Amino acid sequence: MTIEKILSGDKLTIARAISNVEDGRAESVQLLKDLFPHTGKALVIGITGAPGAGKSTLVDRLATHYRKQNEKVGIIAVDPSSPFTGGAILGDRIRMQNMATDAGIFIRSMASRGNLGGLARATVDAVAILDAGGYHKIIIETVGVGQDEVDIVKAADVTVVVLVPGMGDDIQAIKAGIMEIGDVFAINKADRDGVLRTERELEMLLSISERADGWTPLIIKTVATEDKGLENLAAAISGYQEYIAANTEQASQRRANIARHRIIELLRDKLLQLALQKGTSESELQSAAQAVAERKLDPYTVVEEILQKVLGW
Amino acid sequence: MTIEKILSGDKLTIARAISNVEDGRAESVQLLKDLFPHTGKALVIGITGAPGAGKSTLVDRLATHYRKQNEKVGIIAVDPSSPFTGGAILGDRIRMQNMATDAGIFIRSMASRGNLGGLARATVDAVAILDAGGYHKIIIETVGVGQDEVDIVKAADVTVVVLVPGMGDDIQAIKAGIMEIGDVFAINKADRDGVLRTERELEMLLSISERADGWTPLIIKTVATEDKGLENLAAAISGYQEYIAANTEQASQRRANIARHRIIELLRDKLLQLALQKGTSESELQSAAQAVAERKLDPYTVVEEILQKVLGW
Repeated sequence: MTIEKILSGDKLTIARAISNVEDGRAESVQLLKDLFPHTGKALVIGITGAPGAGKSTLVDRLATHYRKQNEKVGIIAVDPSSPFTGGAILGDRIRMQNMATDAGIFIRSMASRGNLGGLARATVDAVAILDAGGYHKIIIETVGVGQDEVDIVKAADVTVVVLVPGMGDDIQAIKAGIMEIGDVFAINKADRDGVLRTERELEMLLSISERADGWTPLIIKTVATEDKGLENLAAAISGYQEYIAANTEQASQRRANIARHRIIELLRDKLLQLALQKGTSESELQSAAQAVAERKLDPYTVVEEILQKVLGW
Repeated sequence: MTIEKILSGDKLTIARAISNVEDGRAESVQLLKDLFPHTGKALVIGITGAPGAGKSTLVDRLATHYRKQNEKVGIIAVDPSSPFTGGAILGDRIRMQNMATDAGIFIRSMASRGNLGGLARATVDAVAILDAGGYHKIIIETVGVGQDEVDIVKAADVTVVVLVPGMGDDIQAIKAGIMEIGDVFAINKADRDGVLRTERELEMLLSISERADGWTPLIIKTVATEDKGLENLAAAISGYQEYIAANTEQASQRRANIARHRIIELLRDKLLQLALQKGTSESELQSAAQAVAERKLDPYTVVEEILQKVLGW
């Protein structure tokens, strides 16, 4: 049985189950329902930041740190889709080869596939499978700072934002909108010039922002390539986890928010899937798109017609 | 009449209409339908890149360049939502004050509002309003490189990816997934060290990627703060526009893809809106989320129940 194999941590079965949720296969739903009571044990860590901040290396070293404590680690690297190839990307393939020999580590790269999105939903489902599979720490690494990334890290128990010295140069860094989602900030490549300035600017930004949970985000300096600062980072992550756990009201609120978000993501996905199955065919959609492109038909009318078919109004 | 005022370029009416589409007001749909035949004239330019690349300054200078040629310019700055404040962000407020005095420029900052998303849809609708309002060039500026940003720039006629020297340092830059969406690359802050290396790395990356439309992306060096390279950038943007226009088959395909994407975004938005109106109430959703958080109920069952109510199965 698939479910027993997943609960016993069978890597191959876990990998297949994740592929199935990624592909949006119907049979995944029953599996996810069955696994659901076995989830909620892992600590889910979201790690995000701008490209070039050294997130991958940081994640790898953090995973290595947890492995030394005999904890099983799942890593989900979320890549925005390449619109041309639609595929997963070079970097993770290289990483997978390096770490795949360790039975206590599971690495998976996930990319959204085309227009239908569902990346946030698929990521959350993959986390659930790894959680049920006995992974103690599940790290979701996202590239970039877009809405989808924000949505994904919202589903994490603890969120780490990775910065590098010099990023605080201009107003752009504030605009990124990632400041306010970080429970912990890692200033990576902290052997570079400007680290103190970045730290001070970050402290200033954090001092003017108010969090609903009363937590003051910790700032940790790391040099991931030299394995420096990783223990402090792990301690900061645990620190936030303990802070939240001690505050029952907050913890319950955070979990309910995550659950609400998950329900909405699932609903959004499922609705679009149903509408495209029942409200239109691929060829109808293509000719409607052509007509819209030629300004012969407006897209609002197209959508109303599809909705009418789906909802039977 | 709202529609005549928009067609005559009345800024206040345009601003109100954009607020209405952002808020997802029902009356917007009829307006957008009425405006639709008047759209398709503007050149839509998507500008994206990592935080700190100087996109805002570049966009402002490019807009100034177009203004000198007596072209009206609309700028939509898309910010990922701040999960805590949900608001628009400092930088654009400052910019708006600087440029708002020019009647031929319209600047608007858009942020997604909470979980319901719809940013991509709202952006496209705002572009349509500006297009109908007689803006010749519409620049969509996005922060970050997430899926939502990719979706948004997909709706542009020409996409400019902004890089800075030194970003090609590691594999992360490739991972960003923005390489393949750029029709034109601007290496901004090109007076910095490492510009030639970044240029060479970019050339190499571009040489190994193949585009369906046969275009070889142009690389333009700019120093936006000193107004350098902006004419070249504008020429590269026109160059791609002309290349595409000369290739009727490609141009028609690109427009159909954009239209298809737009239909799906509209559909996704509308479906979720209907489901949350008809399939559940806010308090039901909250208690379901609470039950899921406590592992008493799985989210898949919750979604099935909502779907049943909406679709009447």
